[in-house]
Amino acid sequence: MIIHLKESVSREDAAQLAEQIKAFHISKENQEVLITSSGMKELPSALDGKVLDFWVMDNDMQLAARKYKNTTREVTIGGVTIGGDSKNTVLIGGPCSVESEEQIESSAQLLTKLGLSVLRGGCYKPRTSPYSFQGLGYEGLMLLVKMREKYGHSIITEVRDATHVADVIEHSDVVQIGAKAMYDQGILRACAKIKKPVLLKRGFGTTLQEFVQAAEFILSGGNEQVILCERGIRTFEQKTRFTLDLCGVAYLQEYTNLPIVLDPSHAMGYAYGVTPLAKACTAMGIDGLIVETHPTPTKAKSDAAQQLTHEEFTALKEEVSKIASAVGYKIV
Amino acid sequence: MIIHLKESVSREDAAQLAEQIKAFHISKENQEVLITSSGMKELPSALDGKVLDFWVMDNDMQLAARKYKNTTREVTIGGVTIGGDSKNTVLIGGPCSVESEEQIESSAQLLTKLGLSVLRGGCYKPRTSPYSFQGLGYEGLMLLVKMREKYGHSIITEVRDATHVADVIEHSDVVQIGAKAMYDQGILRACAKIKKPVLLKRGFGTTLQEFVQAAEFILSGGNEQVILCERGIRTFEQKTRFTLDLCGVAYLQEYTNLPIVLDPSHAMGYAYGVTPLAKACTAMGIDGLIVETHPTPTKAKSDAAQQLTHEEFTALKEEVSKIASAVGYKIV
Amino acid sequence: MIIHLKESVSREDAAQLAEQIKAFHISKENQEVLITSSGMKELPSALDGKVLDFWVMDNDMQLAARKYKNTTREVTIGGVTIGGDSKNTVLIGGPCSVESEEQIESSAQLLTKLGLSVLRGGCYKPRTSPYSFQGLGYEGLMLLVKMREKYGHSIITEVRDATHVADVIEHSDVVQIGAKAMYDQGILRACAKIKKPVLLKRGFGTTLQEFVQAAEFILSGGNEQVILCERGIRTFEQKTRFTLDLCGVAYLQEYTNLPIVLDPSHAMGYAYGVTPLAKACTAMGIDGLIVETHPTPTKAKSDAAQQLTHEEFTALKEEVSKIASAVGYKIV
Amino acid sequence: MIIHLKESVSREDAAQLAEQIKAFHISKENQEVLITSSGMKELPSALDGKVLDFWVMDNDMQLAARKYKNTTREVTIGGVTIGGDSKNTVLIGGPCSVESEEQIESSAQLLTKLGLSVLRGGCYKPRTSPYSFQGLGYEGLMLLVKMREKYGHSIITEVRDATHVADVIEHSDVVQIGAKAMYDQGILRACAKIKKPVLLKRGFGTTLQEFVQAAEFILSGGNEQVILCERGIRTFEQKTRFTLDLCGVAYLQEYTNLPIVLDPSHAMGYAYGVTPLAKACTAMGIDGLIVETHPTPTKAKSDAAQQLTHEEFTALKEEVSKIASAVGYKIV
Repeated sequence: MIIHLKESVSREDAAQLAEQIKAFHISKENQEVLITSSGMKELPSALDGKVLDFWVMDNDMQLAARKYKNTTREVTIGGVTIGGDSKNTVLIGGPCSVESEEQIESSAQLLTKLGLSVLRGGCYKPRTSPYSFQGLGYEGLMLLVKMREKYGHSIITEVRDATHVADVIEHSDVVQIGAKAMYDQGILRACAKIKKPVLLKRGFGTTLQEFVQAAEFILSGGNEQVILCERGIRTFEQKTRFTLDLCGVAYLQEYTNLPIVLDPSHAMGYAYGVTPLAKACTAMGIDGLIVETHPTPTKAKSDAAQQLTHEEFTALKEEVSKIASAVGYKIV
Repeated sequence: MIIHLKESVSREDAAQLAEQIKAFHISKENQEVLITSSGMKELPSALDGKVLDFWVMDNDMQLAARKYKNTTREVTIGGVTIGGDSKNTVLIGGPCSVESEEQIESSAQLLTKLGLSVLRGGCYKPRTSPYSFQGLGYEGLMLLVKMREKYGHSIITEVRDATHVADVIEHSDVVQIGAKAMYDQGILRACAKIKKPVLLKRGFGTTLQEFVQAAEFILSGGNEQVILCERGIRTFEQKTRFTLDLCGVAYLQEYTNLPIVLDPSHAMGYAYGVTPLAKACTAMGIDGLIVETHPTPTKAKSDAAQQLTHEEFTALKEEVSKIASAVGYKIV
Repeated sequence: MIIHLKESVSREDAAQLAEQIKAFHISKENQEVLITSSGMKELPSALDGKVLDFWVMDNDMQLAARKYKNTTREVTIGGVTIGGDSKNTVLIGGPCSVESEEQIESSAQLLTKLGLSVLRGGCYKPRTSPYSFQGLGYEGLMLLVKMREKYGHSIITEVRDATHVADVIEHSDVVQIGAKAMYDQGILRACAKIKKPVLLKRGFGTTLQEFVQAAEFILSGGNEQVILCERGIRTFEQKTRFTLDLCGVAYLQEYTNLPIVLDPSHAMGYAYGVTPLAKACTAMGIDGLIVETHPTPTKAKSDAAQQLTHEEFTALKEEVSKIASAVGYKIV
Repeated sequence: MIIHLKESVSREDAAQLAEQIKAFHISKENQEVLITSSGMKELPSALDGKVLDFWVMDNDMQLAARKYKNTTREVTIGGVTIGGDSKNTVLIGGPCSVESEEQIESSAQLLTKLGLSVLRGGCYKPRTSPYSFQGLGYEGLMLLVKMREKYGHSIITEVRDATHVADVIEHSDVVQIGAKAMYDQGILRACAKIKKPVLLKRGFGTTLQEFVQAAEFILSGGNEQVILCERGIRTFEQKTRFTLDLCGVAYLQEYTNLPIVLDPSHAMGYAYGVTPLAKACTAMGIDGLIVETHPTPTKAKSDAAQQLTHEEFTALKEEVSKIASAVGYKIV
């Protein structure tokens, strides 16, 4: 249950009430909010006379639900706004991994050339084998920061586990929680306390319900800037790396109020399919695309098969722009 | 291995050679073709001096492979052509099941009004329970025939099992092989001998490789008019009925030469998601969409949740037309 | 709803009532039974005064449900009884495909030597490629019949599609409906009218509910001898051919009254895992195992990797016998 | 590639060589070991004359592979040894969550009564919703420690994320890495440096290859005491909570040298199926079972449906003992 308290209830009283009824408490500018388990179907008597409005919820997808708030939340990444009334589809580009200053600078320049402003690059790579390239770590993060200073881009990078979440939170403009870390409460709870956008990727074995509930960990701590990112689920089909779940996207658009960014690169796993999929995604009127591109994909230290060349990325931008336009959106 | 024989080899000789090397034999207008297992990597000596051209194949996706024929095959449904250079996306509409003359006529009239010409409607329903509505069978088929006579539409209906495949082949313009019947060799072999288009749906538990190989059963019998239809695969996600596999579509577009029709209705299972998905599909530059619509979905005897009203279907057509246009296609 | 009519209601009256309320009608020795959709929750007034007993059902798993009949149905295969109070686990053996008289006779002799009596062998193979070995068809069926005549074994073979279901029904002691044909109503309805045991394999993309409902197609036609066979479902895991669903078996044992035979060979896909899995299955107190064995697996024309040698099959029998004994069962 | 260096190479030299060829270095009592990526197929020249033995590996399942070490590794949990030549199947019991001293003491007493010695209990619960019970955390851990002191049991509890891994490592006898944390390198790397057994659960969306590679993160750091735990994968089947992958277990037994513990409780999700599954698991000759039991399952704060009563757990122990005996194992 989500409860909006009356203006007469102070922040301190709200906090006390929250403790009393074992609820989460969010203190917004003009509104004290309590959130209990969705199992609660009736207002507790402790709140008698103190409630402005309340929503009985079917399940624990609560703050993220359209039933609670029926418009897409607005999220701002540097100079770019998505969600709300923006009708913007942000195109985030960059390599799978930050490998060297030269390489990441090449990507940064590509973005500048294309009028784009959000640069991605992995530093703490969640590899499945200890024997492969693990990313440059903090050194990579500093290279991203350098690009931001030099080119003015916003940067987004992935946090792999709770041991370095503070570093990513400190330096990245958008904190990306990767598919394999999606259930990590050490990360989720740390991201709940900040005021930066968080891009939460769906685990490849994660149901939509669990996905949205992971977002609730962040929302219920008071951070409203959560972006959902679908990047493919694991199915029996092995000709492609994963299976992009656009049925799931239709569901999320219908039932949740969070902006949605899609990752066709990881879903497909092969460069040839990234542009067709990006077009399909764009046609749904989504809030963003995150696409891997590398100056020389064949030499990439991770995900070589799925990264686009800069030429392919440039062509992708052109193609998705036409689709975006057809559905009343703009690529930014 | 696919082998094109020299013009000097007669049809009879080709047939004899086929038997000798245990190959399939297709006799085209100006070309005798033999197809062996893809396990064969070298030309058999029996063909010395008789071979015009040949293709060593990696696996049993052979006649359907772009490696053999690098353009999409052209298929004609009544007055409509898809594939080839057509840049047409055919929009097939109609109810899940033919329920009554009034109902199916209403759908036929809707198509006419929208300038569309291919009418779908299930007669032999492959229900999973014996205790639910099983379709009108032959009676339904005759109602479709009546609509064709009255409105000039082409009709497409599903064959459920081999016991009535002859009836469907005789009366339907396009023979639809349903997801549950996709491995049925009684049906596949019957469809291999005809000269009508066959729309082959992917089983929901079927790999892309098996899917294309099922098409090979038809192609290797000499029927070149096979359309592949992706309609969602079964995954762990249960908020939607199935998961539409657009990564798989990207694969099929890259590696096969068969036209592709997508079915967002069955994939999604809920009307609210059908139009968003149809837009996504259209953006990929596909050859067709098959969408369920019913005059009164809430009263439908099957698949009530996923059928669009006629108004929704009309709006869908408008929306996908814009997308088609953005990718250089036309809805027909 | 399942309805047992009073003794005073004649078979003819029962048939008429069935038509009236759109129910299935089964005429048992001392009992007329009507079955309606599970959607029916109250007795129709047409049956006033004519009902002995009735069961309101939650879903369309009806005749197969323990809620209706709380003991495992008894099925007899030649001289062997499974289900009921038998505490028998029948071990069915033989090659994937009947390839030659010599080969199938070798299998038949192995069974005799081991004191087993049910011989399996595929004749109509549901291969996924037209370019691979398709089975000997009717000729293979006749070889099985010859083995029955010579060695007294019962034979079980698979029907692939409705075009040859009559032949299999005529000659086989147990009609096997394969995983790919599981939804085939042409086959299911043909098997509903016979008095022979039917072994129904679960499709690899089939839910337990659909699986049991397919059995209902047979049961509702009056054939009570249905055996369920779990043989592995398709999942993301590819190191093994399929994933044997023993959780599903626990479910079927709890909620259905049909005997259960397990197929570890197809689930695993590799000989090394067949015996460990067969032991696991046996420990659950199941009604049968169906295991592929071939005199020379490496030369098998289909499923070479998963067939046991005769020595391995002999060892398997010994090992599962110990487990069966530990759970109060006997391998027959 | 795994490389055993000659005795003449000192630990310091080995460390230097490791750095030089970018390898992991493990210093065992009488053996310096280097491990490189499996991509390395030939010995680097830097090692000329220094190599005792080496293993070229097909993939990054290296230290865990039978190809490297062909017997199951021995792991000791308190007074109990599994793996090696022990032929022991350890039965680990206890509640899903530690809820109170009374509750966990009741479980501890049950174990004592049954002659068992490893007590499980969750403290840091990886719940999928922020609005449900999250476990007692450190307080729960201390209750487990108290039980160890009072009853002499070994304790095993789950680490949820890297923020509390140090606490669990300090106090628990076996560190359990949960299915949702399986890729967490913060945890894996922390567990690589300790000398305690680690029970690594397979993620429900994790391939066998990734699962074993996660174990390699621990093994390559020098901790040899890794136990693999299969607990069900996520499939399309929803009648049961997950699908226990015993085909996967057969694979792990064939190709890896790590002891295997199975978790039928989470796989099934329902108490009625836990004992049948536990029997199936035991028949495969496995190293352990981990089973949830609660004094009053209906009042459990998490996983109420799947926990056994103490009576059911007692009966389970009896039943699996018979099976264990039939395969030459002993329940400890």
